[in-house]
Formats: sequence, structure tokens, C-alpha cells
Amino acid sequence: MEESNENIQFQISEALIEKVEHLIDSRDDSTILELFNEFHYADIAEILDELNLEQATYIIKLLDSEKTSDILTELDEDNREKILKNLSAKEIAEEIEELDTDDAADIIGELPEERQETVIAHIEDEEHKADIQELLTYDEDTAGGLMAKELVSVNENWTVTQCVKEMRAQAENVTRVHSIYVVDDNEKLIGRLSLKDLLVANPRAHISSFYIPKVDFVHVNDAAEDVAKVMQKYDLEAIPVVDDNQKLLGRITIDDIVDVIKEEAEKDYQLAAGITQDVEADDSVWKLTKARLPWLLIGMFGGLGAASIIKGFGSVFETYSILLIFIPLIQATAGNVGVQSSAIVVQGLANDTIKGEILKRLFKESFLGLVNGIAIAFIVLLISHFYFETSYLISLTIGVALIAVIIMAALVGTFIPIFLEKKGIDPAVATGPFITTSNDVFGILIYFLIAKLILGF
Amino acid sequence: MEESNENIQFQISEALIEKVEHLIDSRDDSTILELFNEFHYADIAEILDELNLEQATYIIKLLDSEKTSDILTELDEDNREKILKNLSAKEIAEEIEELDTDDAADIIGELPEERQETVIAHIEDEEHKADIQELLTYDEDTAGGLMAKELVSVNENWTVTQCVKEMRAQAENVTRVHSIYVVDDNEKLIGRLSLKDLLVANPRAHISSFYIPKVDFVHVNDAAEDVAKVMQKYDLEAIPVVDDNQKLLGRITIDDIVDVIKEEAEKDYQLAAGITQDVEADDSVWKLTKARLPWLLIGMFGGLGAASIIKGFGSVFETYSILLIFIPLIQATAGNVGVQSSAIVVQGLANDTIKGEILKRLFKESFLGLVNGIAIAFIVLLISHFYFETSYLISLTIGVALIAVIIMAALVGTFIPIFLEKKGIDPAVATGPFITTSNDVFGILIYFLIAKLILGF
Repeated sequence: MEESNENIQFQISEALIEKVEHLIDSRDDSTILELFNEFHYADIAEILDELNLEQATYIIKLLDSEKTSDILTELDEDNREKILKNLSAKEIAEEIEELDTDDAADIIGELPEERQETVIAHIEDEEHKADIQELLTYDEDTAGGLMAKELVSVNENWTVTQCVKEMRAQAENVTRVHSIYVVDDNEKLIGRLSLKDLLVANPRAHISSFYIPKVDFVHVNDAAEDVAKVMQKYDLEAIPVVDDNQKLLGRITIDDIVDVIKEEAEKDYQLAAGITQDVEADDSVWKLTKARLPWLLIGMFGGLGAASIIKGFGSVFETYSILLIFIPLIQATAGNVGVQSSAIVVQGLANDTIKGEILKRLFKESFLGLVNGIAIAFIVLLISHFYFETSYLISLTIGVALIAVIIMAALVGTFIPIFLEKKGIDPAVATGPFITTSNDVFGILIYFLIAKLILGF
Repeated sequence: MEESNENIQFQISEALIEKVEHLIDSRDDSTILELFNEFHYADIAEILDELNLEQATYIIKLLDSEKTSDILTELDEDNREKILKNLSAKEIAEEIEELDTDDAADIIGELPEERQETVIAHIEDEEHKADIQELLTYDEDTAGGLMAKELVSVNENWTVTQCVKEMRAQAENVTRVHSIYVVDDNEKLIGRLSLKDLLVANPRAHISSFYIPKVDFVHVNDAAEDVAKVMQKYDLEAIPVVDDNQKLLGRITIDDIVDVIKEEAEKDYQLAAGITQDVEADDSVWKLTKARLPWLLIGMFGGLGAASIIKGFGSVFETYSILLIFIPLIQATAGNVGVQSSAIVVQGLANDTIKGEILKRLFKESFLGLVNGIAIAFIVLLISHFYFETSYLISLTIGVALIAVIIMAALVGTFIPIFLEKKGIDPAVATGPFITTSNDVFGILIYFLIAKLILGF
């Protein structure tokens, strides 16, 4: 059983890529077919992502569409777009015929509008075509955008024997049978059967006598993120999707949800890091600049705002210029505290562990800020006094300012995400440069105000 | 079918919590049982998380252990720990009997060592006990720590009829039958059967004549993160786990992987935000301080380092004090660029889209830094010259310093995560305060060095 070891041990290597490139150059089709026959489609997609467009297209055209359709779904989006440009509408339609409706609709949805229609026109299976056209009408961030039309459903009035016969036919089109959904004569979802129950049931029994009337479902317009939460909370591996009349429209499986969860987490992480679009390390400098420059500009205006504030406290430069050397300390502390506070709030909101109670939370953050602030201020007080040899009053200024700035930063970091959530804006945009920048400006302002108060300039 | 609508629409409310609290106060057990009978265990866990310890314990003791065992697995970890302290070893053992081996081992693993043994001694089912004891020997971050002993496996020498009979017995203990694993007489994993294949097979056929010899599997010591990657890449809903001799030990299902993916993403996000431990908004101020203060201290020392550097360029204070007002700008820019660069690299490393090529990547980041740097420097040059009325040389200094600092920050943000990954350290620790702090210090140093060079002080 050597073969059984293969998938997990697949490791893409430069040697393999070179071998494939060489085989393509010498048009050694039979060796390519033999080699790729060994590989899982996800591994082949990984290989194609490393080849140039011409080579990747050559492979796609060479392999059987049963295999290439799956490969296409696994390719990097940019590469898929380019390869599809190199294929005719008829060739794309052939790939689409092989795919489940959800993957098919995703791929067609990525094509330019005019092309979508031409490709759809080439799909020969009328039912498949109608299903895909239906799926294309749903927003991609909703249950409708995630679901597939492929599922196994049985009528409550069937017997077990009838049911098994129908199921065999339906199962031909369904890669994984998770649950068997039970519908009434109007296609309304009324319950489910588990395969296990069916295995032990009397062949002559009617479905209506033993189906489970309790079934989880989502509405076709529910947000993808909410579907992910429901499936996670209730440990579901598949969930049926219904319309306003409870009519069974499709089903969503856990593998699609894994992608939603991952994308959501990565998006939040990128937003926290100040990257506005979904980019990858391999994207072009231009695309990366578009994603990154806007946040740098926000930071820049914050920095210029801080410069303006410092300049406004003109007398600092003459008498208390030593205060200026602690600007990086004030700013770094404000930034770090703000990001910490906002990250915890953003995650809490995303996981529904924070429910309102805004005042209680602000109070807790203030207290936390006070504790951290006193610890930091005490150390800085000692160091500034003995190492930087600042006067008592200057040391006091720095210490008090640090405590005030930490509390302010914690409050801003907590309040802004909760406020955005209440306004219906994704709170994740609040973390990162946005909060850092406002804390920079506020932090500097508070620092010099406290200095003015204590030192009286 | 009103009932079918219930799960998805469950919304915890203050009114519901108050109602439950009132029922507990008046010891109205029958109404509590009736009410909770309607709820999914995940919903009940959500309710218990809102009650105080005494109330939650009361509910756990009242409900049937078939239900409470599942509730326990869904509770917030801190609350579970407290509730388990209130239960006797025998009571815990009763809950454990109801759980799948993986959940059972997770809960026992959280108990203090002495208690683990007492609880295990109370488990009556000898097979269940042995399975749990085996699972407790594996590291929780490995395949062994994730897997359950419950699975359906058949011998290659059985007939379909024998197989179905055995499966019915085994399936009693398995919540979800994903795949049927095929083993030889030595329990060695040699392939799999799909339920679909079994449905259509001849009852007298031997398994060896139609099983699929190709099966994905992981090794019991493989890292949980790697298992998650494999299952995601190949869209698997369950994967068998084997030991060094290829002996079938257990299986991992996709719902456990969803948790791994989510925790991994949240951990990276928290690390990027400068939070060292896995904390939630509801944790105590003390726990939150322990998670946050270390990073603030790193930032503090960075800030003091920067202060030291500025003080070192003593002549700045006399002749070129205007330079000091742009410190926040330099620092914010360095921080933002560093976090952006590192976030992209950390995600790329986590998703395996970055493979070595360190020089190529550093070159790309330098170029990207140059593009962004020129854009930012140009705007700042105009604003500083016309709004802040700086001299040509000062404006030039700020512009050149910004470009240099942006390139430096991009390089540091790219290099450190790749370096850590090569050294076997999780690169996620590099993002956030760590990179921000080093960029603060380097940024200030570069700024004043360039000023010294151009202005010649």
C-alpha cells in the first residue's frame, strides 16, 4: 500500500517544477499525464501556481476536464483568472459541467459579465445550467452565495425502499451525503433523516413515521458570517438553506465554512495591520501599494497633526526641551495600549462574548489602564530621574502623563470598536493604524497639557 | 413544525437569564427541566456562562448527565473549571461516561493531576477508561491530542453483510460516520470504504474486492496545525490517525479542526496586537495585565532607548529644534510600515504561500518601500515647507529620512518573521509591539543620522 502514503507526504520542490517545465518544453504529453495521474488535484493546483501562464494553460488543456475542473477551483484566484482568459467559452463550460453547482457558480461569477452569458449558454445539462443561474443571483457573502444545489432530499410520504432507491440516484451527484432532508409535497423542509437511522429502519416504513422533525437551517439571505457562527456553535457539518416559504433551496457544507472562518480571521488581521484589501505576499507592488498607502497616509496626517500640536506649545523649546526626548515613549505607549484594547474588544465582538455593557467595559479598561499605567510610570520615573537626570517636576510630569495617556488609549481602543459595531460598521477597521493614529495625536496633546499644568509654562 | 425553527433563532436575553435565576431561587425544578428540554446544549452553556457559579452548578446537578456532559464541553473554560470543582469525582466520571473519548480526555486533562486519577478510577466502562487514558498520553497540540477513539473500521476479509452488521454495532458509539476505514488482521490501516459504495455493493462481496486502497492519514505525533492544513487542502471531513507501524489509532473530524484554525488565527491576531496569552474580554484585570504588561514594557524600553538617542544628538536642541516636532511622524510611519510588512509575511508563512526566496522578497519590499516612501515624502515635503515653514535643507532632511525609514521598516518587518520561521520560532510573535518597538528605535536613529549628514551638526 505504498500509494496510501502519498497525499500527506506531497512536498512541492524546485526539482519537481523543473521536471514539469522540461516535460512541457519537450511536449512529452504521455509522461505528463502519467505523472499528474499520481497527484491530488490540490497538489496539481499548487504546481500550476508555480508555472508561467503558458505552461499552466498547456497542462489544463492536456488533462481531462474531470480533473482540471477541480484543479481550477484550487488555483490562486489571479492565476485562475488568467488561465480562464486563455480558454474558450466552450472549454470553460466543459469544466463547469464537472463541478458542483457552488464551485461552478463561484468560477462563473469571477468572469467578466459578457463572458458569463456565453459560458452559461454552452452548458449542456439544463438542470445544472438552471441551478448555476439561480446561484449567481445570490450575494456571495450570504448563505445563498455559499450553498450548493446538490443534496439528498426525500418526501415524507415515501417508504424506506422508495427512499433508498431515490437516494441512490440523487447520491450520484452528491459528493458527500451528510444528512437526508425530508420535505413535504410543496418542497417545504420539515425535518431530516440520518443515514444511520435509515440503515436500521424497516424497509416498508414510511419516512413520515420516523423522520426527525427538528432540523437546523438558515435563510438564503443570512450573512455568510452568521452561517459560520451557527454551524460552529452547533457543530454542524452541513446545514440546509430555505427561502421565505421554508422551501428547501440548497445546503452548505462545513468545508465552505472553514474558508469563511479563515478569510474572516485573515481579513481582521490584515485590517489590524493596516492593509485595506485582501492581498497576498505574491501580489504586484502596485496592488500592495493600493492596499497599504491609504493607511500610511492616515498615519502621516496624524504625525503632522502631532507636529502641529508640539509646535503650538512653543515655550517648550526654550525652557523644557528635555520633554521632547520622551515623545517616542509617550507615543509608543499610547499606540501599544490602544491596539491591545481594541484587539480584545474586536475579538469579543466577533465571538459574541461582548454584549453591550459599554460603560462597565470602559470602567474595567480604565482600571486596567490605571494598573498598567502605575507600573510603567513608576519604572520610567526612576529611569528618567536617575539616568536622564530630569528634575523632580519633569519626572512627575512624565509619570502622570504616562498614566493619563494609557487610560486614554485604553478607553479610545475600547470605545471606537463598540461604537462602530453599534453603527453597523465592521469594528475590525478600527484596530491598527486608525486607533494608533488617533492615540498618537491625543497622546501628544495630553502629554503637553499635563506638562503645562505641572510646569506652568 | 414550529419546533424546527428554534435553534437558529435562539437569542440569549436578559429576560431569559432573569427568568432562569428566578426559577432557581424558587427551586422550581420541574419548570427548569421543561424549559431546558427545549434548548440545545450549546445554548444552555451560553445561559450557564451568564449565571453565577452556585446557580450554574445547581442546573448541572439538576439536568440529566446525558445533556450536561455536552453542556460542559461548550462552557467557557474558566467556568467549567469552577463548576467541576463543585462536583465530586464520581459525578464528573458520570459526565465523562457520556462523552466521546476526545472530549472526555480534554475535560479530564484540565483537572489537577491528583483529581485526574480519582475521576478515571470512577469510570465504569473499562474500554472507555483505557481509551481516555491512552488519549491523555498525547500532547494536546498533536494529532493524538485532537483525535477520538470512536470510529468505524472493518476488516478487509469481511463480507458486506458481516461489515454492515459490525458497523451497526460500532456506529452506536460514533456520532457521525464519515468514512469506514479498512484494516488488515494486524489493525494496520490499508484503505477506506465510502458509505455510498457500501449502499450499492453486493452483500456477499468481500471488502478486499472493492475497498479504496488510497487513504489520507496523519501520524499521531503530527502537529495539530499541520493536520488542519492537510484537511483544509484536501477538503477532508475526517482523517484517520496511525502510529509508526501504520496501526489505526483514531480519527480526527473537521469540527475539531475548525477550532484549531480559529484558535490559531486568534492567537496570531493577539500576538500582533501585543497580547501574550490567550485572553478574553471577560477575564480578570490581573490576567489581562499579565498578558498585556510585558509588551508594554518592551515598548517602554524602546521609548527610553529612543529618548537616549535623541539626547545623544545634543546639538539638535540648540540649532535644529524644529526637527524634534517631526518625531511622531517618523515614528508612526516606521511603526505602520513595519506592521504591514510583517503581517503579510506572517500570513504568507502560515499559509505556505511564501517559500524561502528571502532575497527576492527583501528586494520587493525595498522597492515597495521606495514607492510608498516617495509618495509620503513628497506630500510631507510640501506641507512641512509651506505650512511649517521649514527651510529647504530641513524639508529635504525630513523627506529623505522618511524614504529611508520606510525602506528600513519594510525590511525589518519582512526579515524578522522569515528569520524566526527559519529558526523554528512562531513568526507571529514578531508582529506587533516587537517590530514596532525596534522600528521606533531604528527610525529615530536613522532620522537624526540623516539630519546630521545633511545639516552637518
